[in-house]
Amino acid sequence: MDEMLQGIVKAFPDRLRFTEGDPRGIIRADAPVQGKVAIATGGGSGHLPVFLGYVGKGLVDGCSVGNVFSSPSADTMAQVARQIHGGRGVLFLYGNYFGDKMNFDLAAEILEDEDGIRTLSVRVADDVASAPRDRWESRRGVAGIFFAYKTAGASAERGDDLEQVAEIARRATSRTATMGVALSSCTIPASGKPTFEIGDDEMEIGMGIHGEPGITRTKLMSAGEIAERVVPELIRDLSLAAGDEVAVLVNGSGATPPEELFIMNREVHALLEKEKIRIYRTFVGEYATSLEMAGCSVSLFKLDDELKMLLDAPADTPFLNTFGGV
Amino acid sequence: MDEMLQGIVKAFPDRLRFTEGDPRGIIRADAPVQGKVAIATGGGSGHLPVFLGYVGKGLVDGCSVGNVFSSPSADTMAQVARQIHGGRGVLFLYGNYFGDKMNFDLAAEILEDEDGIRTLSVRVADDVASAPRDRWESRRGVAGIFFAYKTAGASAERGDDLEQVAEIARRATSRTATMGVALSSCTIPASGKPTFEIGDDEMEIGMGIHGEPGITRTKLMSAGEIAERVVPELIRDLSLAAGDEVAVLVNGSGATPPEELFIMNREVHALLEKEKIRIYRTFVGEYATSLEMAGCSVSLFKLDDELKMLLDAPADTPFLNTFGGV
Repeated sequence: MDEMLQGIVKAFPDRLRFTEGDPRGIIRADAPVQGKVAIATGGGSGHLPVFLGYVGKGLVDGCSVGNVFSSPSADTMAQVARQIHGGRGVLFLYGNYFGDKMNFDLAAEILEDEDGIRTLSVRVADDVASAPRDRWESRRGVAGIFFAYKTAGASAERGDDLEQVAEIARRATSRTATMGVALSSCTIPASGKPTFEIGDDEMEIGMGIHGEPGITRTKLMSAGEIAERVVPELIRDLSLAAGDEVAVLVNGSGATPPEELFIMNREVHALLEKEKIRIYRTFVGEYATSLEMAGCSVSLFKLDDELKMLLDAPADTPFLNTFGGV
Repeated sequence: MDEMLQGIVKAFPDRLRFTEGDPRGIIRADAPVQGKVAIATGGGSGHLPVFLGYVGKGLVDGCSVGNVFSSPSADTMAQVARQIHGGRGVLFLYGNYFGDKMNFDLAAEILEDEDGIRTLSVRVADDVASAPRDRWESRRGVAGIFFAYKTAGASAERGDDLEQVAEIARRATSRTATMGVALSSCTIPASGKPTFEIGDDEMEIGMGIHGEPGITRTKLMSAGEIAERVVPELIRDLSLAAGDEVAVLVNGSGATPPEELFIMNREVHALLEKEKIRIYRTFVGEYATSLEMAGCSVSLFKLDDELKMLLDAPADTPFLNTFGGV
C-alpha cells in the first residue's frame, strides 16, 4: 500500500501530496484552500479511483487510505482534516460502511475536542441491491459516490458554507441509485485466493464492490438482458417518471473491457428512452473498481437545475483528467 | 461492434458523431475544422481508448474502426478523411501493422485520385520487443501511440501545415519506446477461447497488444523485477543519458488494477532517478488495452522543448477527460 501511494504521488507531484506526518493521508497539493469548506473522504483501498482519485480542485480536498478493503484509522482521518481545513469546517463524505463510520465519527470527536474544527458527515448509500430505500442505514455506498463528490465539491468551490455543502451531498446521495453485476471474483492480495467462486457461465446480480453477495445468481446474460434486470430497479428506487432528467454512469469493476461498457451503455439508453426519461449526461469508464473483478454497475442520478450546474462545474483530478487543470 | 459504437456516440453526442454514410467511422462532432490539418487514425477494435478514444480537440479528427483486432476497410478510411478534411490535407497516423498499412495506402490513392485530397502517412512503431530499432519496419505500434497523437494533434491545432504535423508525428514516434508484460491472455469474443495459454505463476515479457508472443516467458516477477527487466531496454533503445528529459506512461492492458500500475510507476521512477534521467510528466492508466488481458506496458518519450510544449497543450477527449472541454 505504501509503495502504491508513493507511486501515485510520484506520478502527480504538482497536484497531490502526502499529509504531513501521516503516509496514509493524501491531500491536494495546494491544501488548505483558505475560506473554502474542505471535504475529506476515505475508505479501504482496492477501488481506484475511489477514493483518493477524487482529490482535486472542484472535488474533495483530502483522503485517508486504508489497507485493501479495510477502513483507514481515525488518526489519519483527523490528520487529513487538520491539513485541509481552510477555516470553514470539514465535510466527511464517504461510503456507508460500519468501519468507516466508526472511525470518521471518532475523528470528528477528536477534531472538535482537540482542534476546535467543526465537521459534518454525509454517507453515500446508493446500492439498491444491498437494502431497500426505507432501510437506508443498511445500504452500501458504491460507484454513485462519484456524483456526491462532484456536486458537493462544486458546492464547496463556489463558496457555500458547511451546511449547504452537506445539503448538496445529501441531496445527491438521496437521488442516486446503483446496481452492479459480477462475472468473476476479485482476489484480495493478502489472501491470494478469489473472494468467491463463480462458474464461467454464471453471473451475480446486485454484487457489492468487496464481493458481497448480490440478490441472485444466474446464467450469463447479454448486455440487453442485464439492463432489463437492472434499470427498472433503479427507476423504481428513484421514482423516476417520464420527463425526469438523469445522469448515467456505466462503471467498470476492473477487468471488463471498455468496449463492453459501451455496449451496456447503449442498452441503458434504450430503456431510459423508452420510458421517456431524459439523459442529461453520460459517464462510462472505471469510476469505482474492485481490484480485478469482472463486471459493471449502472448508476442513475436524478437531476434538478442546481445539481446539473454543479455536475458541469469545472473539476480536476489526474485520475479522470489526463489533460490537466481547469 | 455496431452496438459498441452506438453506445459510444450515445454517451458523448456533443463530441463525437458517425461519419455520414459509414457506421464504422467516428469523427469529431465539429468536423471538419476549416483551415486546420486533419489527422485520421484507425485500426482494429479491442484496444480502447486506442484508437477512437483519441478523437477530440487537440488530438485526432477521425477514426476508422475495424472488427476486433482486424483492420478497418480502405473505404471507411477514405470516407473519414473526406469528412474531416478542412482544406489543408490529412495525416494518416496509425500503428505499424500490415493490414492497416495496406488499407491506409489504398485510401490515400483513392483520396488523391478521386477527391484531390493530399495525405501523408506516419506509422507508430514503439514496441522494442517486436524488433530492434534498425529493423523499424518490423516493429509493432503499441501504447506509445498516445504521445504521437498528443503532439501531432497539438501541432495541427496551432496551425502547422501538413509537412510540419507529419514531422512532429515522426519525431514523436522515433523518440518513444515501449515494452509490455502479460500475466493472462485476452479472449477474442468471436473465438471464445484465450488467445494463448499461460500458467497462473508465469508471465510473458515483451508481449504484443494482440497476444503476439514476447521475448521470453518467466516465473511471475515483482514490480521491481519487471521494471529492472524493462526500463534498461527502453533506455538503451532511446540512447537516454543522464540529464535527458522524458515523459513516462505506465499503461494497463485491461484487467490489471490501477493500484498495481502505480506500484509499477514507483519502480520505474526509482530506476530513472538512479540514471539521473529527469521525469517531466507521468501518465498512469488505461491508454491502450487488449480486451481483458492482465498486464501492463511502460513507455518512455524522450522530450525536447517543442515536444514538451505540444504535450502540455490543451486537448479533449471524453475517454481521458471526464470533466470536459478545453
